[in-house]
Amino acid sequence: MKHALLIDLDGVLYQGAKVIPGALEAIRWIQNQSIPHLFITNTTSRPRRKIVEKLSGFGFDISEQSILTPPIAACEWLSENVTGETALFIPSSTREDFNSIPILKQGKISVVAVVLGDIGEEWTFSELNRAFTFLMEEPKPKLVALGMTRYWQTAKGLQLDVGPFVKALEYAASCEAVVLGKPSAQFFNAALRILHCEPSQAVMIGDDILGDVQGAQHAGIKGVLVRTGKFRSSDIDSGIHPDAIIDSIAGLPAWLDQN
Amino acid sequence: MKHALLIDLDGVLYQGAKVIPGALEAIRWIQNQSIPHLFITNTTSRPRRKIVEKLSGFGFDISEQSILTPPIAACEWLSENVTGETALFIPSSTREDFNSIPILKQGKISVVAVVLGDIGEEWTFSELNRAFTFLMEEPKPKLVALGMTRYWQTAKGLQLDVGPFVKALEYAASCEAVVLGKPSAQFFNAALRILHCEPSQAVMIGDDILGDVQGAQHAGIKGVLVRTGKFRSSDIDSGIHPDAIIDSIAGLPAWLDQN
Repeated sequence: MKHALLIDLDGVLYQGAKVIPGALEAIRWIQNQSIPHLFITNTTSRPRRKIVEKLSGFGFDISEQSILTPPIAACEWLSENVTGETALFIPSSTREDFNSIPILKQGKISVVAVVLGDIGEEWTFSELNRAFTFLMEEPKPKLVALGMTRYWQTAKGLQLDVGPFVKALEYAASCEAVVLGKPSAQFFNAALRILHCEPSQAVMIGDDILGDVQGAQHAGIKGVLVRTGKFRSSDIDSGIHPDAIIDSIAGLPAWLDQN
Repeated sequence: MKHALLIDLDGVLYQGAKVIPGALEAIRWIQNQSIPHLFITNTTSRPRRKIVEKLSGFGFDISEQSILTPPIAACEWLSENVTGETALFIPSSTREDFNSIPILKQGKISVVAVVLGDIGEEWTFSELNRAFTFLMEEPKPKLVALGMTRYWQTAKGLQLDVGPFVKALEYAASCEAVVLGKPSAQFFNAALRILHCEPSQAVMIGDDILGDVQGAQHAGIKGVLVRTGKFRSSDIDSGIHPDAIIDSIAGLPAWLDQN
């Protein structure tokens, strides 16, 4: 069987406002060869529909179904693992990606899952306490995290992301979150389920030595590093050994032919 | 040398609005015998001065110096371990207990330590982010927690306590907090330093099989359980073995005479 491909977006297909040279041709080649593939990204600030629009603007013809984001992986996980209503603590921008699952009705206090995303200033004490109170009900709902990012850089300085709030609730309610975002193996596993493929058949291509390469390898998936995006030459000496390093996604067809 | 005693307050000297029968006499006996002792409590909702007043109302003649609370232990730890200003995220009710250490001046961003207490509704995203931002400065300030309680029961329902916020910041800033509250060994160590005594010379008397008895034992201190306060007969089968079990603090003089 041919390999299935998991491909990161930012830094692999494009960088800032520019397409990586050769990326359009490489993706077209993969599509023409009918190689099973999924684009996987940790983006939770925009719905999948907007990601398709952005990629289209770059000239990529990529469908919604071939993109996996943490919200989509969360819906996938929820529909496979729980039956009932879910409470969402997520940015309004990605709420449309949860249309396929039953969401908590106003005023109810019992849910089967609590989903946490990066909602920044919307985290008040009472909002965090509301999530906590759900988690203390019996039977205990599942805690689902859209990634475990610690913080990010804004114009005003560093800002807490979703990870610290997941840690707070895990501790308060004595539970462990299902994490759907790279480098969590649960996120890679969701991708494999969608592609109906085994870890050993899959290859992840990314520019992040930790999130993409090490994360994939921990899930039993080959990790290929590209020298574009956030790649730094120091990544080579990081102690993490990519299964291959290619100059850019443009080199992927040749690499696949040889392997 | 005689033993030094660490004595819990709530549930050991009094229960609700009532003194434990024989407690007044037992404490007077300890004081008359000049046995080194310290009353240690996890209370952070009132300053030490108010605890003395409350005990006095029950008929106990106990000085501020013989009471160790998390804020007092934090000051002790800070004055021994850091030099510079500290940022406080603590309830205003215990702010007076921090008079002995230098506190952050308005507008400064560099501190040697960040102290976290249970501030409930005062936790906004921006306040938590402010604590985080301090912790990301170099050299990295120490994170000091006034306990690690997960939550407490209020009239309106469960409410998050300080612990979850400590966990959030530990994860966000990749650090480990110094915890000054039972059952942390660091809190018991602060008590031993004040008494100038070794763990093997000390005995903790408390009604909490986990916080008092197991916590003390983990710090190398003998743990004596009283059958008052939050004691439940199921504590006996908890897998934790108190060094002794006495009916109440009233039995302490006799137990000390025999041991």
